[in-house]
Amino acid sequence: MSLNKETKHIWEWIPGGVGAPQGFWANGVRAGVKYANKYDLAVIYSDVPAQAAGVFTRNLVKAHPVLLSQKHIRNGLAQAIVINSGNANACLGETGDQAALAMTQKAADCFNLSSENILVASTGVIGVEMPLPTILQGIEKAIAELNGQKREVEQEAKPGSEIKIQAAHNAARAIMTTDLTIKENALEIKCQGGTIRLGAMAKGSGMIHPNMGTMLGFMTTDAQLTASQLQSLLLSAVEDSFNMVTIDGDTSTNDTVLFLANGSSGIKPLGEDFLKFQEAVRAMCFWLAQEIARDGEGATKFLEVQVTGAKTREDARKAAKSVCGASLVKTALFGEDANWGRIIAALGYSGADFDPKAVSIWLGDLLVARDGQGVGFSVRRATEILAAKDIIIKIDLQKGAETAKAWGCDLSYDYVKINGSYTT
Amino acid sequence: MSLNKETKHIWEWIPGGVGAPQGFWANGVRAGVKYANKYDLAVIYSDVPAQAAGVFTRNLVKAHPVLLSQKHIRNGLAQAIVINSGNANACLGETGDQAALAMTQKAADCFNLSSENILVASTGVIGVEMPLPTILQGIEKAIAELNGQKREVEQEAKPGSEIKIQAAHNAARAIMTTDLTIKENALEIKCQGGTIRLGAMAKGSGMIHPNMGTMLGFMTTDAQLTASQLQSLLLSAVEDSFNMVTIDGDTSTNDTVLFLANGSSGIKPLGEDFLKFQEAVRAMCFWLAQEIARDGEGATKFLEVQVTGAKTREDARKAAKSVCGASLVKTALFGEDANWGRIIAALGYSGADFDPKAVSIWLGDLLVARDGQGVGFSVRRATEILAAKDIIIKIDLQKGAETAKAWGCDLSYDYVKINGSYTT
Repeated sequence: MSLNKETKHIWEWIPGGVGAPQGFWANGVRAGVKYANKYDLAVIYSDVPAQAAGVFTRNLVKAHPVLLSQKHIRNGLAQAIVINSGNANACLGETGDQAALAMTQKAADCFNLSSENILVASTGVIGVEMPLPTILQGIEKAIAELNGQKREVEQEAKPGSEIKIQAAHNAARAIMTTDLTIKENALEIKCQGGTIRLGAMAKGSGMIHPNMGTMLGFMTTDAQLTASQLQSLLLSAVEDSFNMVTIDGDTSTNDTVLFLANGSSGIKPLGEDFLKFQEAVRAMCFWLAQEIARDGEGATKFLEVQVTGAKTREDARKAAKSVCGASLVKTALFGEDANWGRIIAALGYSGADFDPKAVSIWLGDLLVARDGQGVGFSVRRATEILAAKDIIIKIDLQKGAETAKAWGCDLSYDYVKINGSYTT
Repeated sequence: MSLNKETKHIWEWIPGGVGAPQGFWANGVRAGVKYANKYDLAVIYSDVPAQAAGVFTRNLVKAHPVLLSQKHIRNGLAQAIVINSGNANACLGETGDQAALAMTQKAADCFNLSSENILVASTGVIGVEMPLPTILQGIEKAIAELNGQKREVEQEAKPGSEIKIQAAHNAARAIMTTDLTIKENALEIKCQGGTIRLGAMAKGSGMIHPNMGTMLGFMTTDAQLTASQLQSLLLSAVEDSFNMVTIDGDTSTNDTVLFLANGSSGIKPLGEDFLKFQEAVRAMCFWLAQEIARDGEGATKFLEVQVTGAKTREDARKAAKSVCGASLVKTALFGEDANWGRIIAALGYSGADFDPKAVSIWLGDLLVARDGQGVGFSVRRATEILAAKDIIIKIDLQKGAETAKAWGCDLSYDYVKINGSYTT
């Protein structure tokens, strides 16, 4: 069953981020986790318990908040999420477990909920003790402010949207580390029974690779969905979006994407409406994934690799990611150098099955190799294409009908600079 | 059966590179393949047909000389090798196959041999037409010179060693691309019946990773060995040496290691002597592999990762290579930043089986993490350790008795610079 094309773009992008769906609230504050003046503590809250789904890092080394959230999400319910940047709360043993637990307990106290209904995520440096009193104070402050915003919007009949939008924006700001751009978005879908909304925010930038491409992503919706529906929607969208982003080949200990549905719209999307919602979730994940790639550490260029003609979907994915992640492709991109040999070399070690003598490669729309060999292309035209900020590499493996896309960025001096001095 | 420790260091390092073993000759010239004044064409020649072994890239995309050498080595015999830098002769279709063949034919003509007994290797940019007339002229020149050197040394009773040493040195120079150091060495082993020698040269630097770590490596010996003995000696040594070097995660289309044994010493190493020889071959490969890592593109530091306590040998290898190859570990090294969290994260996504709560990590001799958690170490001391040019990271997985070592280098601004402008 697939969506009728004409109804495909029924949704509209709206402001408000994760606070856009009915009954959701978000806020971000400057707690002082690592820096005095950076927004670094965020909360997301639903007026009622929400169905919850999550996808977590496949790194064997999992941060303490990842382990705790995996536990708390097991019953498919959550009502709030608390997130800090500036410290990953990873590899700290007992004290790390306790810190993650204390964060959920503090949020539970402030919201008057059970701590089992609170999820938690952290991002930042690994192995450094959490400044727990600072973080707990931050949680108190963020929730006090959020409750104030709620009162203002609900009781005093103020034009609430501006307040909500700004607070959600601060939440999206608070989860950033080396990110340069705030990544948040929301959309609205007209369904038969009325309107449902989807909100999202994410942070990315470094330590990003295959299994769970983003460090942190959060989505909220006021649609009525079960936790298992939510989980399968999330899994399939993450597979083709976040998991196809590669910045530096490093899979983080903290990667987490959470998705909450509180049903506050009163609408259960069925049939065509469900397909629309599914498409919207995918669109949102693609948007976030591309924003993360675009904002890769030190990136000066955005890269999309499109693979067609693969024998299997897995081959297509391997090929696309291998090219996207190859240091030599990434540096050539930075240098605006039409060195397509590095692209075919990366295909060759990708593990994908294909005949090297059948491959075609394009930079943008310029064919540079056919049947595995260079064609006489205009180097001037290639250089023009590579001078753009967004670069598309197309590859036809000529071995089947499967396709995949992967996203990444170039490898620049600034990547080295940023990562040569991150803890200190 | 293992070597008696007391006899282990029976060999002596000597000058002469691949020309050191009896009956071997090598030469390098400036042919003008890519640059006017660079040594870029090398030949190795044996007075008699030699037993031959080879290990080649596992990249699905194989350069034309790789395909031809694989064919020519099938009968286990070779008498000469011809090598060019400045052009990889890869992804050029028919003309690439013809160019590789023409190189062996030209060498065969000049040496008065059959072209099936000539092996060939190329390194440089992929997908650019070979300047074949230039290369063939270079081969002629290199062999004419080599024959002259042979005559001088053999017939005119001149003190030949200096001439041979310089000519082999020029061969080692001619295979370099972005290498900054010439990588050649030779050794001598006292056996029961007399002396056998082993000579070697290699080039590395970029596009270096797991399957066949080096771009090009060549070994010669005057011991009497069969091609199959040679092949198994080579395979086991390459596995633990070249294949444990990682510079940038890119596996080249051209990686080749060749090993020739011409028997000119008249000595067939048996028993203890064979074990000594085996150790010497391993020592030579380790030496070359480390030289390649030390000279990684843009490297300012040399990294050795030592993994102990792994459950399986494969786990140990995966863990060591993952840490050695992690962009975030490499940039931290460049920044002299004791960010051990990146080391444990790289272990976590390596695929090796271990308990994150049992791992210990040392920078040099300084314990920085125990039981998967940071210990209170002196940051001043860590910074001192990281300020050195050679860095050792030790990891104990506490899961078994297997060990592995991997070698690499840091990721610097210069890596980006070198690779941002390689073809142009």
